Amino acid sequence: MVRRYLSTISLAEALDLIGRSYACVPGTATVPLEEAAGRTTAAPIFARFSVPGTHVSAMDGIAVRSEETVGASEQHPVTLSDAVRVNTGNVIPPGYDAVVMIEDVWMGDGTFTIRRPVSPWQHVRPVGEDIGESEMILPSRHRIRPHDIGALASYGVADVAVLSVRVGLIPTGSELVPPGERPPPGKVVESNTLMAAALLREAGADCRRYPITPDEYELVRDAVRLGVAENDVLLVSAGSSAGTRDFTADVIRDLGEVLAHGVAIKPGKPVIIGRIDGKPVIGLPGYPLAAATVLREIVLPLLSRYGLVLPDFGSAAARLTTTLHSEIGTDEFVLLSVGRIGDAWVAVPQSRGAGVQMSAVRANAYMRIPAASEGVEAGEIVTVRLRVPLDTAEEALLVTGSHDPALDRLADLVRRRGVDLHSIHTGSMGGLLALKRRDCHAAPMHLLAPDGTYNVPYLQRYLPGEDIVLLCIAERQQGIISREGITFGELPDHTFINRQKGSGTRMLLDHWLRKHGIAPSSIAGYDREVTTHLAVALAVKTGEADAGMGVYSAAQALGLSFVPVATERYELAMHRALLGDPRVSALVETVSSDAFRRILRSLGGYETDGTGGLRELRG
Amino acid sequence: MVRRYLSTISLAEALDLIGRSYACVPGTATVPLEEAAGRTTAAPIFARFSVPGTHVSAMDGIAVRSEETVGASEQHPVTLSDAVRVNTGNVIPPGYDAVVMIEDVWMGDGTFTIRRPVSPWQHVRPVGEDIGESEMILPSRHRIRPHDIGALASYGVADVAVLSVRVGLIPTGSELVPPGERPPPGKVVESNTLMAAALLREAGADCRRYPITPDEYELVRDAVRLGVAENDVLLVSAGSSAGTRDFTADVIRDLGEVLAHGVAIKPGKPVIIGRIDGKPVIGLPGYPLAAATVLREIVLPLLSRYGLVLPDFGSAAARLTTTLHSEIGTDEFVLLSVGRIGDAWVAVPQSRGAGVQMSAVRANAYMRIPAASEGVEAGEIVTVRLRVPLDTAEEALLVTGSHDPALDRLADLVRRRGVDLHSIHTGSMGGLLALKRRDCHAAPMHLLAPDGTYNVPYLQRYLPGEDIVLLCIAERQQGIISREGITFGELPDHTFINRQKGSGTRMLLDHWLRKHGIAPSSIAGYDREVTTHLAVALAVKTGEADAGMGVYSAAQALGLSFVPVATERYELAMHRALLGDPRVSALVETVSSDAFRRILRSLGGYETDGTGGLRELRG
Repeated sequence: MVRRYLSTISLAEALDLIGRSYACVPGTATVPLEEAAGRTTAAPIFARFSVPGTHVSAMDGIAVRSEETVGASEQHPVTLSDAVRVNTGNVIPPGYDAVVMIEDVWMGDGTFTIRRPVSPWQHVRPVGEDIGESEMILPSRHRIRPHDIGALASYGVADVAVLSVRVGLIPTGSELVPPGERPPPGKVVESNTLMAAALLREAGADCRRYPITPDEYELVRDAVRLGVAENDVLLVSAGSSAGTRDFTADVIRDLGEVLAHGVAIKPGKPVIIGRIDGKPVIGLPGYPLAAATVLREIVLPLLSRYGLVLPDFGSAAARLTTTLHSEIGTDEFVLLSVGRIGDAWVAVPQSRGAGVQMSAVRANAYMRIPAASEGVEAGEIVTVRLRVPLDTAEEALLVTGSHDPALDRLADLVRRRGVDLHSIHTGSMGGLLALKRRDCHAAPMHLLAPDGTYNVPYLQRYLPGEDIVLLCIAERQQGIISREGITFGELPDHTFINRQKGSGTRMLLDHWLRKHGIAPSSIAGYDREVTTHLAVALAVKTGEADAGMGVYSAAQALGLSFVPVATERYELAMHRALLGDPRVSALVETVSSDAFRRILRSLGGYETDGTGGLRELRG
Repeated sequence: MVRRYLSTISLAEALDLIGRSYACVPGTATVPLEEAAGRTTAAPIFARFSVPGTHVSAMDGIAVRSEETVGASEQHPVTLSDAVRVNTGNVIPPGYDAVVMIEDVWMGDGTFTIRRPVSPWQHVRPVGEDIGESEMILPSRHRIRPHDIGALASYGVADVAVLSVRVGLIPTGSELVPPGERPPPGKVVESNTLMAAALLREAGADCRRYPITPDEYELVRDAVRLGVAENDVLLVSAGSSAGTRDFTADVIRDLGEVLAHGVAIKPGKPVIIGRIDGKPVIGLPGYPLAAATVLREIVLPLLSRYGLVLPDFGSAAARLTTTLHSEIGTDEFVLLSVGRIGDAWVAVPQSRGAGVQMSAVRANAYMRIPAASEGVEAGEIVTVRLRVPLDTAEEALLVTGSHDPALDRLADLVRRRGVDLHSIHTGSMGGLLALKRRDCHAAPMHLLAPDGTYNVPYLQRYLPGEDIVLLCIAERQQGIISREGITFGELPDHTFINRQKGSGTRMLLDHWLRKHGIAPSSIAGYDREVTTHLAVALAVKTGEADAGMGVYSAAQALGLSFVPVATERYELAMHRALLGDPRVSALVETVSSDAFRRILRSLGGYETDGTGGLRELRG
């Protein structure tokens, strides 16, 4: 029997349901001031005493009675015998009402001479100047900042009542192993509650992770019962789909009510909104990106009803590089890499697969395609929500095209110089076209032309008249990756794993097949495409294929054999105008650095002598 | 002898000096993943294994050999006998290369019938789809986010190497008492290292606070020697001025070198930049706002050289409400309350006194007046740096005018509704003028006109023709605050403490003096002005004055006597157009709420029956 969701409601309905279904009364905890940063005040906080507590001197000088200084001048200095020496912060003695700066005093034997009159209360910090006893320092529902902590301490507050929302997190699933263990085939590391706890702690929640509960009805029920008793909000990770071993909805129904099962968002549809003993119990989907979307779009709005808020990083208007289709009736959230190219923000969609957790690592922004929309066209200006501070987003360098492990290592090196290199893997031709549309800062490519040269003929043909420079990252070896040292000529006898059309490696393979007179149809697996060098090596390593074409470093990383075929120029093409951009300058300098050459040598398969050079090209 | 600073350098020179004087090599610490959020990676992190580790099903369904499905159609269904039932995430058995969704399968007795062919690798998540073994997950110098933690766990990483910069914080000063103690007169709570530790921890530093060291040369020297040995960076709080007991510079010179003493910034000038054993030793000024400025402008840039970064909240362009004069040659930093009025950001300067720590609590932004500038005129557009997330700044409601303790309580209540009420104390007339200039959202006022009515005649005169509404916060009693029940008629026999010109209370006093035929000159202290009700009450409580005029709640807060004089309308004036603003709606609703009326009753001295009403006024 295939079970279906009980119902699917819209995101707006889900948020409305959350608003209506729970009391959302936060608890209160008292924390010492040292631990209060980022917490939210539960009640207004008042000054225990005035600061200053008495009139004090604002300067190093002498305390005087101002009426005794009347008439003092250069011609008629006034000598005071009962002035009192005070330092900054000292109490003004009773009867005194002003301070003269020490620089303006001529000191004699127990006397002080001044040459200017002073007005009453000059250089005196009156009692309560900073704050008066009983005054409100902070309202309730205020997120405590470091500066607030300093002020609270000064005004006599040593511990503060903060909101306490206890969130329990129960991972369920017989396929899960705890973080730190290597999962056997078909099992995965339980990472969702770890991610959720880190996220919700940033919003100020008190998170508690429970042990993994296997998919056994009674065990899940017992865990949920305990989790509800010990927390204000309970999140049950996974088991929220409609599979045969997805018990979460049944358990919630058993112990309380399922208010909704299924919300029309993508990723994240199989979410459960439940209530047990009046408390929210939310069933999270299992795919990490689906869980993350539900946390952001449903759980954080729920926590905001308790007064907790996750500070966000604001939004920007960006030009979308790729058309995104979306289902009418579903709010879809798409992760993005955004970067500023010239004056405009450009947004490149990440993989939309809910299983590709790396998308969340790579993305620095996201966007929503509303339920009423069928999608967004490439070139449209969209509102993107940032996932990093704006100044970090400003550091993003969009590098679209051919991928190579050396590019990741370059990203690592330039990070030390404040550049956030986002590499988007489209293959060389994809990069060429992205560069033409100004959808990226730079395009890494290795496109072999019929004349035996690299890249320039393609740039001249596809970007005629444009002022382009080419930065050589490395001359690198491409070859046959296999378990047992298969050579190019032996390919027809083995199962192959290919790269996607438009990739430079595919074009190189086809060039060599023509040169050797080998028909593609004679190679089993020629039609099976993957998109990176490492994916080729993985297919070989797992036995799915016997051989594929790729770079040496990919073979070396997985301990595979490599038989060289050709050496090619792996270059980064970009518009010359960008050379003035400090991010690009940092990149150019890093490519020719000793540190990068050392890394290339350690990866193997790269010629480093020719690297770092800039070739100029006027189309 | 008056000691002077050794030298005063510009902020730019100080930053350059910092860049040249230290190696700034961060240490590395290994932390478990659970504690890694907000830390910065010390090295690139690579995947320990591929995810998925084998080809797995992306759907609940059956694993098939795709070539066996060729030709399947509605007319010619294909029945497979060796298909294998798989759930999402299950391993695809060897020899199988595609998955058919369970919804598209007709199940018989051990057989599966399908009516459509499937292409190879359909609904299969290939090995390494998410990430391949050995691929880089994160570069170095990456600030770890919750999503990164989830991904790291999934890819086999259980602990991470993060930057570790140990920052020692030594509070010095015989005038200091630890947080939680009530300081006797002339002493203050040591709050600067608490604030600094909270701030630098947000940037990812490992902070250690040392006990308070009294101003004794040998004790300070021993503390600094230990602090340098145990940390990468040492901050010595206070003792950095040129007073007789300011030893910090001498101690640094004794143990190492003073590179600079005095930087031309305000607040924060008496900073020391030193070096001991090659490590940075920074002497912070004692005034909290000066210390905070040095932390932000000098210490954080220093820590950024170790790879630590404090995420900032970006900037905005805002219209300055008040002219700010500034000394040429000094970079001055001014704390601001900024709010959006209509489409424009408006910036109101906070008190510039370095001793007013509450300014840092009240401010949600700051600006820099560059060294080359003499100041900024009111009305100029300036760049403000936000100190809160943009969405929090959007919540700010600027309320400028007359202050009343009830206004703080109103701020507390509306905070629960997402409004951040910034009250700026200028007195009623100041509020009226701010409203006229559209420098605030609303102006609280209680201006008695000669005809005995409140506020309306002033609005008609100063804002003629403008569409204004008045929201009555309360009818409140003003009276004589004293220790021993002094009445209005007895004022000439006692010392008085007055409110500033332009305040409604001052105008009320003058009205009553005229009415009773009392000459201001007959009242001792008539010229001594303070700016809040509580400041009046404090002056009375400390014995500086015998009596003053103010509201009942101020007298009650300090346990003083109160003899009523008059009842007045304390109203909030605003432009009618703002009634549509959700922040203003929340305010209007809150004023008429039971919760607010209960608070007014508990404060005492307010009539609550007339509150919450809106009066409309067309000039």
